[in-house]
Amino acid sequence: MTIAPAQPRNFWKGHGTQNDFIIINDPGVVLPLDSGTVGALCDRQRGIGADGLLRVARAGSLVDAGVLTGLGEGIAADDLFMDYRNGDGSIAEMCGNGVRVFAHFCRVSGLTDADEFVVGSRAGARRVHLHSVTQTDADVSVAMGPVRRGVTSSAMIAGHAYLGLAVDVGNPHLACVVPGLTHSELAAVDFTAGAAFDTAVFPDGVNVELVTEPLDVGDSLLASMRVIERGVGETRSCGTGLVAAGSALLASVQRDEGMLRISVPGGRVEVAITDGGRSSTLRGPSRLVARGELFDGALG
Amino acid sequence: MTIAPAQPRNFWKGHGTQNDFIIINDPGVVLPLDSGTVGALCDRQRGIGADGLLRVARAGSLVDAGVLTGLGEGIAADDLFMDYRNGDGSIAEMCGNGVRVFAHFCRVSGLTDADEFVVGSRAGARRVHLHSVTQTDADVSVAMGPVRRGVTSSAMIAGHAYLGLAVDVGNPHLACVVPGLTHSELAAVDFTAGAAFDTAVFPDGVNVELVTEPLDVGDSLLASMRVIERGVGETRSCGTGLVAAGSALLASVQRDEGMLRISVPGGRVEVAITDGGRSSTLRGPSRLVARGELFDGALG
Repeated sequence: MTIAPAQPRNFWKGHGTQNDFIIINDPGVVLPLDSGTVGALCDRQRGIGADGLLRVARAGSLVDAGVLTGLGEGIAADDLFMDYRNGDGSIAEMCGNGVRVFAHFCRVSGLTDADEFVVGSRAGARRVHLHSVTQTDADVSVAMGPVRRGVTSSAMIAGHAYLGLAVDVGNPHLACVVPGLTHSELAAVDFTAGAAFDTAVFPDGVNVELVTEPLDVGDSLLASMRVIERGVGETRSCGTGLVAAGSALLASVQRDEGMLRISVPGGRVEVAITDGGRSSTLRGPSRLVARGELFDGALG
Repeated sequence: MTIAPAQPRNFWKGHGTQNDFIIINDPGVVLPLDSGTVGALCDRQRGIGADGLLRVARAGSLVDAGVLTGLGEGIAADDLFMDYRNGDGSIAEMCGNGVRVFAHFCRVSGLTDADEFVVGSRAGARRVHLHSVTQTDADVSVAMGPVRRGVTSSAMIAGHAYLGLAVDVGNPHLACVVPGLTHSELAAVDFTAGAAFDTAVFPDGVNVELVTEPLDVGDSLLASMRVIERGVGETRSCGTGLVAAGSALLASVQRDEGMLRISVPGGRVEVAITDGGRSSTLRGPSRLVARGELFDGALG
């Protein structure tokens, strides 16, 4: 008989373009990861501190433990599943930066020896490809699914109105490609007060991206982006926001498909939008920073 | 021959009333803790993340390594010395919450088996007393030195002017005890825009405390406090600010000495001001949360 521990003990910490995560390796789903525990772990002063938490589990074990009601399309019981939690302990379906770190961890911890595999998520199966991997660093592509363009709308940031394109990447975005905006002008925009948007268009809120005009270098478009995440404020990177920005950048040059290299405050990624927007890929770095042991009772 | 590692490898993380620290055990001072490394370690997305870093070292080894120019009054070469760094890598003289965590770490890691000992700091020798200690929790008193009252001045916070008392605890404070202010009213004050103060009185800036009127319960005065730290903004606790608030609370009832129990957002502490203000003690909790191992090259 095995007694389930009262709290996670072993953790890893890593980040994808400075979106940072606590990783809990729990393939058999024996840890009671309630929202209070996750929130305490992610609390930056009281816990370890992170934007979110990735539980690494087998999909079937999550079903057996009642965490998931079913496997989801394209996900096998033996597949690795990213049980993602926001820093406040709430559940989120997907995290485009987190899934790179997740795949990196699975590879270096020996949970898989494949360089291409399926990661299960609440948003569905996500195919990942590790182009290179060391203990600390990996270069990972993730299939991000379809990208749906919507209406034109605008956001107010620091007293300026920016025109943008609504883009759905499983969650809502307003990606504003600003004609003439330079990288250094973008860096100087005051994001502290967040963005105001049209609540008739975005009744559930929206993530807002501010993006420089693209530079066409032949094989790809280059641009810089900053993001204000719904319910969070500015972050150093946002995986789905990068894909949304890619779609809006292509729209700004009357294209439906293409390759983009986008800089965010946390680093650089590549976005590919293919098949007329019916599929997309996000490629970027993962960094594993540390591993550690939580002391018993430290979160109490 | 020992090759000094290029970066710290082993770390601990802990907090004192939610002022959190990375602890690096380096008694012989072999680690090159330059400000860039400290800043990267304390970066909450890219590193481990903390308000500050405590290097645990022997005072004599810090002198031998050229980190200190001399031992300082009352500090012996064999004494444990808190080589404190702010989260941005800069050097600070003292941290009243950090020294409790420092003392706790020294005790549980076996660097000392005493319950009372001297901790060296750039602000001088600090006598500590561990009243109780487990792996995760300790109750620690720290001698905080003299408290000097100054002039009356005022601070503007969220459009309101608050009258306060300048108090020097090695660093400058303006502690505003507000008649009639309740704990819940204090909790509702908007601190996001910081505090404006009289730069003629505080040319080097000042830490501002907002404090409820004290409740006299016989053996002590009870109060709640929030603090805006110089150059940082609101924090969940501030060791020297608590001592300054204690002095101002006593002044508000025409006393020079006494015992106080003060709540901050990060927890509760006791402050004792004795000998007419010529000495003070701060007593509060320390929590050790985790220990870990940083991966080689993870900060690069």
